[in-house]
Amino acid sequence: MTSVVTDSVTIAREATREALHASIERLDPRMRHVCGYHLGLWDADGVPTGLSGKGVRPELVLISTAATNRDPLSAVPAAVAVELVHNFSLVHDDVMDGDESRRHRPTVWAAFGLSTALLAGDALLALAGEVLAEAPSPTVGYAVQALSATTRRLIAGQAADLAFETRPDVALEECLRMEADKTGALLACACSIGPMLADAPACSAAALAEFGERVGIAFQLDDDLLGIWGATERTGKPVLSDLRSRKKSAPIVAALTSGTAAGAALRALYRQEAPLDEDELARAAELVEEAGGRTWAERRAAAELDAALRLLAEAFPDPHRAAPLAAMATRLAGRDH
Amino acid sequence: MTSVVTDSVTIAREATREALHASIERLDPRMRHVCGYHLGLWDADGVPTGLSGKGVRPELVLISTAATNRDPLSAVPAAVAVELVHNFSLVHDDVMDGDESRRHRPTVWAAFGLSTALLAGDALLALAGEVLAEAPSPTVGYAVQALSATTRRLIAGQAADLAFETRPDVALEECLRMEADKTGALLACACSIGPMLADAPACSAAALAEFGERVGIAFQLDDDLLGIWGATERTGKPVLSDLRSRKKSAPIVAALTSGTAAGAALRALYRQEAPLDEDELARAAELVEEAGGRTWAERRAAAELDAALRLLAEAFPDPHRAAPLAAMATRLAGRDH
Repeated sequence: MTSVVTDSVTIAREATREALHASIERLDPRMRHVCGYHLGLWDADGVPTGLSGKGVRPELVLISTAATNRDPLSAVPAAVAVELVHNFSLVHDDVMDGDESRRHRPTVWAAFGLSTALLAGDALLALAGEVLAEAPSPTVGYAVQALSATTRRLIAGQAADLAFETRPDVALEECLRMEADKTGALLACACSIGPMLADAPACSAAALAEFGERVGIAFQLDDDLLGIWGATERTGKPVLSDLRSRKKSAPIVAALTSGTAAGAALRALYRQEAPLDEDELARAAELVEEAGGRTWAERRAAAELDAALRLLAEAFPDPHRAAPLAAMATRLAGRDH
Repeated sequence: MTSVVTDSVTIAREATREALHASIERLDPRMRHVCGYHLGLWDADGVPTGLSGKGVRPELVLISTAATNRDPLSAVPAAVAVELVHNFSLVHDDVMDGDESRRHRPTVWAAFGLSTALLAGDALLALAGEVLAEAPSPTVGYAVQALSATTRRLIAGQAADLAFETRPDVALEECLRMEADKTGALLACACSIGPMLADAPACSAAALAEFGERVGIAFQLDDDLLGIWGATERTGKPVLSDLRSRKKSAPIVAALTSGTAAGAALRALYRQEAPLDEDELARAAELVEEAGGRTWAERRAAAELDAALRLLAEAFPDPHRAAPLAAMATRLAGRDH
């Protein structure tokens, strides 16, 4: 049984890769080139790279569909659409955040300019809706609505993230909501849109959405910790980068609002006009830890992952079916390293 | 009969206005505020203005649906979606073109900054797909695909427009294709998506798409002429603005590629490194005219409008049904002034 599931996922994975490439081929030559560059299909001169994104989200679409005992092949349009929405948000977020590199290559705006990056993101978003709407499924309308609502949350999350940069007073609760919107929403969608499109029972899709949301929050909290304490080789970002740009990620907000002496000292550093030097950055990281921000984030991430795995076990009494989802969740939450 | 059609359009127009407002209310507070500002619902401080866009595209959706003898009320989600896509493109185009004012108010990026404008455009595009997908129609899938393909053409047109700015050698044919993508595509969609959603005969929808495409080209050519010779009060743009920014609009490309002495002189002016002064701008406008660019654009616009009206008369033998579409086409092509 397990091997049949695995085989059907393998087939769907290859079909997803092909459908993703085919979707890019619909674009006009300029947008095709730029979007294909962003997806890692070729370099800025059009030379094929052999690389491609890690594809966590399409994988979640396929294995969640398989978990509901539906053919993951029927979820391929959803897998492609979710990956396109994810990449739309990356291309535009890189513009807004001024990030010049991603996956060890120049970002789209850095390589091709602002206007082209704007249009490329727009093209990816429009393409997502188009690919999904074409899915030959009686429940395609629900899937399109789910993806749209998710996109709305992504945008709300990014808007909140940007607004936080200039706000001195961010509460932990709103910070967590921002992170749930920025990261949880799309993972919730990735874990439920395939079953939705494949007409799996609504209760399975709902449980998988909740599972994905919690995994997304755990994943984001782990990413927040990496944004302070590193692993450049994994994230492509330098150590202390979030402190350097004075981001208000959850562990930092937890520290700032802790009511501790360390939190107050961190607040004073964040208020400083001049850029923080290397000593001050190292001190800021220590203060986040002293104020309990690190421990809080680690515990919260663990709690979200545990809750997600419990939900999964309840929704899928046969552990074989849910095993790939559980493994992916553990990996995403950074609990496999 | 005519008054019944008119009444049903009046009802649908009000429903469209309400549905457009309701769609904006789905957004998070920040995006709601910014998108509502752009749509003219309120000013930058949130004070209601009583203004709103001219709504040409939703009007086309409703009257084309009525022309096919379907209830325009069933096309309301399409009218809202087309208006949202139009406004998405305005918000992002203003960023790319660096335009600081629109409809005599600061553009979104000028009022709220680049990142917010990026997100607001994204939000409007996502909302369009969402609203349309919710339409309770068995043919909603076709409508969603039509809108997506249209958005793809809008993006391709804007990408070409930007690319032309730095290309010395733009052919008239590709310039016309760019204008058809930038303007014709969305009017083609506005004239056919309502009938498509209301399950009108496919041949009517196809004729209306062709009609809208040609009206869009005539409209764009008229707009190109206004971009050189003015009517600031109508366009909100200063006289000679397209020459100042060395746009390669169709009348200008027609002049540049005319093989005339005036065309060569214009080419030399366009190659000049320094900004053109007022005398040079006036001279450039004269050269476009001498090289035949103005006459060419006027004739081509008239030919497109005539072809559109012929198509309409063939598709709708009852002139009452098509009269509102014919009137709107004439107005859009600038032939009513």
